[in-house]
Amino acid sequence: MVRAKSWTLRKHFEGFPKTSDFELKEVELPKLKDGDVLFESVFLSVDPYMRPYSRRLMKEGDRMIGSQVARAVESKNPTYPVGTYVVANSGWTTHFISDGKDLQLLPPWPEKIPRSLALGTIGMPGLTAYFGLLEICKIRAGDTVLVTAAAGAVGSVVGQIAKIGGCKVVGCAGSDKKVAYLKQIGFDEAFNYKTVGSLEEALRKASPDGYDCYFDNVGGEFSSIVLNQMKKFGRIAVCGAISGYNDTVPQKGPYVQIPMIWNELSMEGFIVSRWNDRREEALKILLRWVVEGKIKCEEHVTEGFEKMPAAFMGLLKGENIGKAIIKV
Amino acid sequence: MVRAKSWTLRKHFEGFPKTSDFELKEVELPKLKDGDVLFESVFLSVDPYMRPYSRRLMKEGDRMIGSQVARAVESKNPTYPVGTYVVANSGWTTHFISDGKDLQLLPPWPEKIPRSLALGTIGMPGLTAYFGLLEICKIRAGDTVLVTAAAGAVGSVVGQIAKIGGCKVVGCAGSDKKVAYLKQIGFDEAFNYKTVGSLEEALRKASPDGYDCYFDNVGGEFSSIVLNQMKKFGRIAVCGAISGYNDTVPQKGPYVQIPMIWNELSMEGFIVSRWNDRREEALKILLRWVVEGKIKCEEHVTEGFEKMPAAFMGLLKGENIGKAIIKV
Repeated sequence: MVRAKSWTLRKHFEGFPKTSDFELKEVELPKLKDGDVLFESVFLSVDPYMRPYSRRLMKEGDRMIGSQVARAVESKNPTYPVGTYVVANSGWTTHFISDGKDLQLLPPWPEKIPRSLALGTIGMPGLTAYFGLLEICKIRAGDTVLVTAAAGAVGSVVGQIAKIGGCKVVGCAGSDKKVAYLKQIGFDEAFNYKTVGSLEEALRKASPDGYDCYFDNVGGEFSSIVLNQMKKFGRIAVCGAISGYNDTVPQKGPYVQIPMIWNELSMEGFIVSRWNDRREEALKILLRWVVEGKIKCEEHVTEGFEKMPAAFMGLLKGENIGKAIIKV
Repeated sequence: MVRAKSWTLRKHFEGFPKTSDFELKEVELPKLKDGDVLFESVFLSVDPYMRPYSRRLMKEGDRMIGSQVARAVESKNPTYPVGTYVVANSGWTTHFISDGKDLQLLPPWPEKIPRSLALGTIGMPGLTAYFGLLEICKIRAGDTVLVTAAAGAVGSVVGQIAKIGGCKVVGCAGSDKKVAYLKQIGFDEAFNYKTVGSLEEALRKASPDGYDCYFDNVGGEFSSIVLNQMKKFGRIAVCGAISGYNDTVPQKGPYVQIPMIWNELSMEGFIVSRWNDRREEALKILLRWVVEGKIKCEEHVTEGFEKMPAAFMGLLKGENIGKAIIKV
């Protein structure tokens, strides 16, 4: 008999999440029916999207949403024999039973590559960077690309794919350690937005001619400043808005229309599931880039399922470099 | 010897333009050199863009920018014999000499169509509507299209082209008379944004399922409200932002990123000159639609060159239905 631990949303977040908003529950899982598989979570993911989605997709008492790399430990489904690794979207839980639907098999996985990357560079965040840059920013060799939250799971991949694509890459992050990391993985310019003084000047200095592409992970005041430094026909991929996720009252900034017209800018919000039909193809490319060393991957690993809320709050505070992962 | 009268920018506008910001000057034009043509303006145009462009393109003392339909009255250029009609960008002036560059010949013009339409539906505003809808909004039959400043030179054409394209069209304007006009030219829904009470509810009522396309002529608070009523994958063409042109301090509104992401919206600013290479082709289509009665054209004609500043200020106040034209 297997007991599954799960983190649930005890109370909807008001402002920044608190420990008391989460509740750990334990349930006994039923016996497997034909077609069922019992999985144990090996790695779990915390991601910024969980903050805004909590309000939209969850009610109080629900299990926290999220993905995991999981291994089949008991199986009545021939597609997933014991030992099979999958990526699932079963939320913050140690164990779960699946009927085999909505699971993603890991592609053939080289020994030296940690499987946790299936939640990062070779998973949803990597795909987000890939499709956002290629399909929304429409990068071309020679473009200058700006990315915010650049040391995060998405941002760090954005910068490295843009380099592969022959772009000049400027990254912003919130600590000197992150900035050093960005330089190390090949960013042409990087600065600490918290200590730089004038963001306007720092952006101007990093690229005096302005920016062709802006991969926006933060929104808010920062993005309003960037809007006035985009080049003619600049493209903005709006991926996230972490600066506003914990606001209780929506913040305001200058209206966007006039700068959008002057430079004929395009701005597009996107969610990576739009390209689900091209997922396999893109994952193969990302895996190859990782194997070839063209994309370096950093992980911020928290050990212990019980620390998951703390890991999530740490992510929202920007404590991680690279992908925030929980090792069960 | 011909004396040309011109309206100049005496002082840069601060807030809403004032009569004293303009100055009428009179100069004697020189004799024609070989290749020169003397034109007299027959119809002049006032357009909202002149307000923001005045600051960017003009210095105090310069002639006000703008276009006219003009007729050759003396010519040393075989391409433009006396009697030839052109569209020129020679600013607010009664007469001007051209060396023949940067003039647009009017296409073969049916007798019953006023030549002033070359400044409206069969000119820049019509092209703006045409390319903005087709290339930025990417309208498809069945789409619901919202247009603001709908009774203006651009908006009224936007609505009618969207109807030709098989869309449902909702228009907003600032008087009951304009709303009646919109219904008359085929808008499915129209309301007076000044008297409607809750804009949010009025928009919801006009299209409970939301909007596929938004042709934005106004910016500001109105556009922030629309953003939350766009359908998934909605397209926003940012053409103008007249609500903010006279602000001395830029106004603020809610940041756009979160609604842009939720519904994966795209927003693009544009200037019609982007499609200059397709100008002739589009003008032919617009002329045909006018001749066939598929697009109805209203003009708000001010008689007398001396009234041009008043006509411009009236335009910014929204006094016109259809294209604001000055008949010299």
